Amino acid sequence: MDAWRTSIVDARDGHIRLRGYDVPALMTGRTFTDTIFLLHQSRLPSTAERALLDAVLTGVADHGSGAPSCATARLAISGNRQSISAAVAAGLLAVGDDHGGAGLGCMELIAEGVSLMKTEGLSIADAAARVVAQSRQAKRRLPGFGHRVHSTDPRTAILFGLAEQGGIAGDGVAFVNALEQAIASAVKPLPINIDGALAAVLHDMGFAPEFGRFVFLIGRVAGLTAEVAEELAREKPMRIRVPVEYDGVAPRDLE
Amino acid sequence: MDAWRTSIVDARDGHIRLRGYDVPALMTGRTFTDTIFLLHQSRLPSTAERALLDAVLTGVADHGSGAPSCATARLAISGNRQSISAAVAAGLLAVGDDHGGAGLGCMELIAEGVSLMKTEGLSIADAAARVVAQSRQAKRRLPGFGHRVHSTDPRTAILFGLAEQGGIAGDGVAFVNALEQAIASAVKPLPINIDGALAAVLHDMGFAPEFGRFVFLIGRVAGLTAEVAEELAREKPMRIRVPVEYDGVAPRDLE
Amino acid sequence: MDAWRTSIVDARDGHIRLRGYDVPALMTGRTFTDTIFLLHQSRLPSTAERALLDAVLTGVADHGSGAPSCATARLAISGNRQSISAAVAAGLLAVGDDHGGAGLGCMELIAEGVSLMKTEGLSIADAAARVVAQSRQAKRRLPGFGHRVHSTDPRTAILFGLAEQGGIAGDGVAFVNALEQAIASAVKPLPINIDGALAAVLHDMGFAPEFGRFVFLIGRVAGLTAEVAEELAREKPMRIRVPVEYDGVAPRDLE
Amino acid sequence: MDAWRTSIVDARDGHIRLRGYDVPALMTGRTFTDTIFLLHQSRLPSTAERALLDAVLTGVADHGSGAPSCATARLAISGNRQSISAAVAAGLLAVGDDHGGAGLGCMELIAEGVSLMKTEGLSIADAAARVVAQSRQAKRRLPGFGHRVHSTDPRTAILFGLAEQGGIAGDGVAFVNALEQAIASAVKPLPINIDGALAAVLHDMGFAPEFGRFVFLIGRVAGLTAEVAEELAREKPMRIRVPVEYDGVAPRDLE
Repeated sequence: MDAWRTSIVDARDGHIRLRGYDVPALMTGRTFTDTIFLLHQSRLPSTAERALLDAVLTGVADHGSGAPSCATARLAISGNRQSISAAVAAGLLAVGDDHGGAGLGCMELIAEGVSLMKTEGLSIADAAARVVAQSRQAKRRLPGFGHRVHSTDPRTAILFGLAEQGGIAGDGVAFVNALEQAIASAVKPLPINIDGALAAVLHDMGFAPEFGRFVFLIGRVAGLTAEVAEELAREKPMRIRVPVEYDGVAPRDLE
Repeated sequence: MDAWRTSIVDARDGHIRLRGYDVPALMTGRTFTDTIFLLHQSRLPSTAERALLDAVLTGVADHGSGAPSCATARLAISGNRQSISAAVAAGLLAVGDDHGGAGLGCMELIAEGVSLMKTEGLSIADAAARVVAQSRQAKRRLPGFGHRVHSTDPRTAILFGLAEQGGIAGDGVAFVNALEQAIASAVKPLPINIDGALAAVLHDMGFAPEFGRFVFLIGRVAGLTAEVAEELAREKPMRIRVPVEYDGVAPRDLE
Repeated sequence: MDAWRTSIVDARDGHIRLRGYDVPALMTGRTFTDTIFLLHQSRLPSTAERALLDAVLTGVADHGSGAPSCATARLAISGNRQSISAAVAAGLLAVGDDHGGAGLGCMELIAEGVSLMKTEGLSIADAAARVVAQSRQAKRRLPGFGHRVHSTDPRTAILFGLAEQGGIAGDGVAFVNALEQAIASAVKPLPINIDGALAAVLHDMGFAPEFGRFVFLIGRVAGLTAEVAEELAREKPMRIRVPVEYDGVAPRDLE
Repeated sequence: MDAWRTSIVDARDGHIRLRGYDVPALMTGRTFTDTIFLLHQSRLPSTAERALLDAVLTGVADHGSGAPSCATARLAISGNRQSISAAVAAGLLAVGDDHGGAGLGCMELIAEGVSLMKTEGLSIADAAARVVAQSRQAKRRLPGFGHRVHSTDPRTAILFGLAEQGGIAGDGVAFVNALEQAIASAVKPLPINIDGALAAVLHDMGFAPEFGRFVFLIGRVAGLTAEVAEELAREKPMRIRVPVEYDGVAPRDLE
């Protein structure tokens, strides 16, 4: 097999470099969040950008021990206590469009809206109205808005505040705010949730839409490791059995 | 990278062969269970061996929709409905020493006992007593015995009956029966469960101990796919939230 | 948490039943392939249906030890030899639209075509032409046709032969054949591959489209277990390191 | 099912708190690395502790794009481009005793040595010699020492330097240094590698041995997301096929 090409790790001369920077140098002068930013953008963040990415990662680390990702990790370690990595991986497998996935979807909406503004010369309000109308017509949900518990998500204000203070807020934050208005007009008021907020600020820091999914995985893995550690420390193997109620066909005989 | 060596799939001349047999030929004259046997033993089973392996696989396919493997798969698909393979994989990740894992452990005990009989000339009863004593001294559990629900597991009698009728029962079945006696004498009566029974008959068909784990994965994947299919067909995304009760430190302020 | 409802496993009275049938009864009179069929259709297959499903499962068990699913499983066990289930699960995670995924896609095309015939009264040739035209317009690939190695896939003839002999071939086989003609007319001749063939016969046995993905996972897990067993038996831990060539930014200093 | 107990996330009154601290407060005043520390120790780190944990996480983020974890993630996304979480999870599944796993093992050695010093009044050199002798007798490897590429790992000096400067270095660093001496005397000189170094400093910050595995998963997930992003952006689906060489049984006919 031919060598695979990569632009991430450079190990050519006894040094290990990430995106060109020596790892030992990154280990002293920089933080883990800087490394995450660097790995995905090939540049180091400003102080304001680092603080904002830190806030995003903490915001998604763990938001309820009974969420699918956390419960999946706990169930896995309950049956397979020999493999910590299997349990953490199982937790990540519950992350998708319906759980932790709206960030990616909302970043795609933002990209679509910003493109409409440029290519068709639409105002931001018109672009937002267009995106909402198109989504409704296609019966797509509008990812990043609404929440099953909160009427407003306090994490949204934190992220937008940091983005404003740091001079980072731009098209992303403006367009998500415009979408919120357009949704209120066309459907009903739905608050910007954590996924919508992180989509906005990640867009404004220059991340590609896929990073909306990656950032959730990176943040959540911190919470999953704590959930697994707690299950190992406090609970017995196989303590979890989900109660089920059978409602299928009646007992029958093989002919 | 150099080519990896393999003795499984031969694709050298436009044919695809498994362990030397043409796949199209296997597809007509043989069953999937034959293929499983062939992949792990490099020979095809007798009629009696096939029937016995079929019974083992059906016996472990699904034994309760609320078991960790099944519940894990359902939770994963609940949050990530776009990836069927992720949900099935998550279910397998819950399989380990504590869930579906006793087959491997019991096959190791059988190998240990059979070896004692040969190298030290012990009778089967003495070898079993020795294995039980050593396990107790090392505070190891005796995998393959006891069950949280059944006082006797009906699947055990089925497997042993098929092994006797088919002329397959040998050292494995004999040693597991001897272990049951030795455990009853030294500790308390514990029935041979499905893991102990499948370990015995798999040993007698010539499988290596690791197959005790593999066979559970192969059989269980059938049940997991059905669990995932049912979750997709009958339930809404994110319908599962496990209720949790917080008992950690009280609310506190950042200094 | 309320009990989860299920129509699969019934454990209400000390018995364990799958879709209404006692597991011990299934273990004697029936095969593992019967159990797979039963779990997904809630009925047992005829002899011809069982033979056809056996052929499908053997056909996808392992078609090359270097395919992504197999290589993924081997890499995982190479770094994490303590967890067999983790390695097999890793192999399944490589299964998606691009690898093992065309069965599901092709079953959806069949369902679409059959529906066009009924709702719009189209002939089978016209329905096939319409499906091909729509796919081309939407720039969707036509799953189930073409192969990177074979000009014709020998497994296709086997499956169609069994379906004809067993009196199972119906709309599915007819429509996939019609699609092959329509593709040859509109684009270029592309052979029906294993995914197209299994989609046709699974449709004709009454399976839902999702089973096109499930059947690949069930069959492939057999191959994955053999790949992992071979890696454990013949190779050293960490023996695999994929060679990479760095082509990213030049070494640079932190400011 | 009864509610599961947890000491991690508190969502009782409309707030979300991690280990007692409001998430929005953590998002402004603190970093993601603080959150990781908090989740596992239920206290926030000092400035020196934070810098040290940042260094550990960056040190393990990605150390070669061809390592099993990275290659596994790339193979998975190559076949299954629809599921980002599946690919990242597959990468984690390659992490075990042989890849990324020595941290946990070395933290257990440290705990063992520190306990010997206390319970048997041994000097640190004698405790280290004892641990080395016991490991050699049991034919266990000594995790945390030696490296396939480097004669000395530059990351070790960085971590020990930060630990000294920050006043954190204690029993852990001292005992790992004593182990290095004892290994050089009893076997041959083997440098302290990244796993041995992170084990030492994590011990000195009060983490339990399991965190030696968790920290690798948390750091590595950053690298895995970048590897997956690059594969998606630069490569075609299914571009990876590992070359294999068949050396099994010759072609044979079914009887």
